[in-house]
Amino acid sequence: MADIIVGIMGPGANPTEPDLSNAYALGKMCAAKNYTVLTGGHNNGVMHAALKGAKEAGGRTLAILAFDDKAKASEYADIVVVTGMGSARNNINILTSDVVVACGLEAGTLSEIALALKASKKIVLMTQNNQALSFLKDFGKDNLFTAQAPEEAFLMIEKILADAR
Amino acid sequence: MADIIVGIMGPGANPTEPDLSNAYALGKMCAAKNYTVLTGGHNNGVMHAALKGAKEAGGRTLAILAFDDKAKASEYADIVVVTGMGSARNNINILTSDVVVACGLEAGTLSEIALALKASKKIVLMTQNNQALSFLKDFGKDNLFTAQAPEEAFLMIEKILADAR
Amino acid sequence: MADIIVGIMGPGANPTEPDLSNAYALGKMCAAKNYTVLTGGHNNGVMHAALKGAKEAGGRTLAILAFDDKAKASEYADIVVVTGMGSARNNINILTSDVVVACGLEAGTLSEIALALKASKKIVLMTQNNQALSFLKDFGKDNLFTAQAPEEAFLMIEKILADAR
Amino acid sequence: MADIIVGIMGPGANPTEPDLSNAYALGKMCAAKNYTVLTGGHNNGVMHAALKGAKEAGGRTLAILAFDDKAKASEYADIVVVTGMGSARNNINILTSDVVVACGLEAGTLSEIALALKASKKIVLMTQNNQALSFLKDFGKDNLFTAQAPEEAFLMIEKILADAR
Repeated sequence: MADIIVGIMGPGANPTEPDLSNAYALGKMCAAKNYTVLTGGHNNGVMHAALKGAKEAGGRTLAILAFDDKAKASEYADIVVVTGMGSARNNINILTSDVVVACGLEAGTLSEIALALKASKKIVLMTQNNQALSFLKDFGKDNLFTAQAPEEAFLMIEKILADAR
Repeated sequence: MADIIVGIMGPGANPTEPDLSNAYALGKMCAAKNYTVLTGGHNNGVMHAALKGAKEAGGRTLAILAFDDKAKASEYADIVVVTGMGSARNNINILTSDVVVACGLEAGTLSEIALALKASKKIVLMTQNNQALSFLKDFGKDNLFTAQAPEEAFLMIEKILADAR
Repeated sequence: MADIIVGIMGPGANPTEPDLSNAYALGKMCAAKNYTVLTGGHNNGVMHAALKGAKEAGGRTLAILAFDDKAKASEYADIVVVTGMGSARNNINILTSDVVVACGLEAGTLSEIALALKASKKIVLMTQNNQALSFLKDFGKDNLFTAQAPEEAFLMIEKILADAR
Repeated sequence: MADIIVGIMGPGANPTEPDLSNAYALGKMCAAKNYTVLTGGHNNGVMHAALKGAKEAGGRTLAILAFDDKAKASEYADIVVVTGMGSARNNINILTSDVVVACGLEAGTLSEIALALKASKKIVLMTQNNQALSFLKDFGKDNLFTAQAPEEAFLMIEKILADAR
C-alpha cells in the first residue's frame, strides 16, 4: 500500500506569519497520522515550514524540486525528487498529492490551485486574502474548500481522504 | 530574427460566445501584424478559434499539445509541437509566448495566467467574470491588464511588445 | 494541413566536420521540399548548422530549447519554443518530429535516438563511429536506418514520410 | 539529511531472467544499507523486481511514474510520484538518483543511460548484450561501469557513493 501523500503548497518568498504557522501545524498533524508531506522542497517559506513540522513530529517528507540542485533542498526533506523543469513541476506536485492544501497565495501557489482544479483534485485553501477566498470558492465549486484554522483544514483533509477510499 | 509569438489562452470546453469571438478577432489582428499565434492547439474552443482567425488572415500558427496525438490538433495549426506532458505543457505555452492574452477563464487558463505572473510575463485578460477580473487585477499588479474589446486588447499587446524591445 | 517536421539531432559541442556538413546539407534539402526543420535550437554545433542550411535555402525552422532564455537560441530559428526543462525536452523533440535524423552522436543525441525508438519513430543515423553504427542498427531493428551521405539519408527520410502518409 | 537514492533501471516488458534476478538482488542490498530504491514504478519487469527486493528486505521505495494513474504503480512502491509526462520523466529518474544501475537494456533504459551520461552521473550497467556492453563502455568513458554479478555491481555503487561524499 503506497503512502498517503498530502501536498502543502504556499509561498517560498514573503509568506505571511499565519501561512508559516499553518503550514508548520499541518505538517505536524500529517505526520501524526502517518501521511507523507509533499512540498516544492525549497529551503524557505511555506515549503520549508511544512517539512519542518512533519519532521519534528517524526513524519516522512517528500520534496519535488523545480531546479536541478539537490543540495539546495530544504534540510527537512527525506526524499528529494529533482525535476530540473522549473514551474512545469507544479503539475507533478498536484498529480502526486492525494489531497492538496494551500497556505497562502502567490503566483506559483495559484498555478497549483488551478492545476489541482484542472485535474479534479480536492484542495483546501487557507489565506487571509478575502478577495482570493471568495473568487476561488466560486471558481473551484465542489473541489475547493476554505478553512481558517489548521485543525479545521486537517478535518477537511481527513474527510477528503476518507471519501476517496 | 525569431518570430514574435502571441499566446492566446482560453477554455477548450464550454467557452462563452465573447471568448470565441475575441480569440478569433485577436488571431486575425496578430496575423495582420505578422505575429505567430500560439495556443494549446486542441481542436475546440478558444484554442481553435484563435488559430482559425490567424489562418484566415494569412498568418502563421503554432500549437503546443498536452497530449501525444498530433492527429487531434486543430486543423488550423501550422506547426504542431507534441509534448505528451499533460498540463505541465502549460508552462511551455507561457515561456514561449512573448505576450499572453487570456480569452475567458477555466482552470487550465487560470493556471496559465498564474504561470505567466510567476515568470514575470505580461498578460492581458478578457473575461465577463467580474469577480475574476477584480481579483486578478489586484493579484497581477503591474503585469496584468484587462480589456473589454479585442481592439483594446490588441493595443495593449502592441504596447507590451514595443516596451520589451 | 500541419507542416511536415524533420528533426535533425546531433552534438552541440564538439561535432565532427562531417556531422556539421551533413546537418547543413540536410537542412537545405528539407527546405527545398518545404519541410520544417526542428532542432534543439542552441547556437552551436549540429543544431545551428541544420537551421542555417534550412534558412539559407528559404525554409522554415523550429527550435525547441532546453533552457529558458530565448535570446540564446540560434539566430537561424524562426519559431523558438522555450521549455526550461533541461534534457526532458529531448522527448518533445522526438514526439514533434515526423522523422528524425541524427548527425553524430553524443550523450544527448543518444538519448534522442533511444527516445525515438521508445516512441516507435523511424530514425536515420549518420555517424563515423562504426561501433555505434553496428550496435544501434541491431538495437533499433526496423526503425533505425544508417546512411553515409546526406543525399542517401534524405532519400530515406522521403521514403519514411511517404510510408507514413 | 536526505535519503540516498539508488536508481535501478531496466525493461518493464520482456526482461531477461538475469535482469530480473539482478534487479531483485540489488533492491535487497540497497535496503540493507538503508538506500532508497527508485524505479520507473510500473507493475512489471525490472522496475517491479527491484522494488520487490527492496521491500522484502525492509527498505524504502520510490516510484516515478510516466503515466498519470497512481493505481497502476507497482504494489511495492512506498512513495509514488505521478508525472503524467510519458518518457520525459526518464530525465527525472536520472536527476533524482545519486547513482544509477541498469539491469538490462531496452529503448527506455538506453535513454536513461544516455541522460545519465549527459548529466554527468555515474552509471553501472549489467547486461548480457556484449555488443551493447562494449559500445557503451567506450561511449560512457569514466562515468560508465560494467558488472556481471549483483554483488560486483553493488560494490561499484558503494564506491561511487563514497567518492561523491
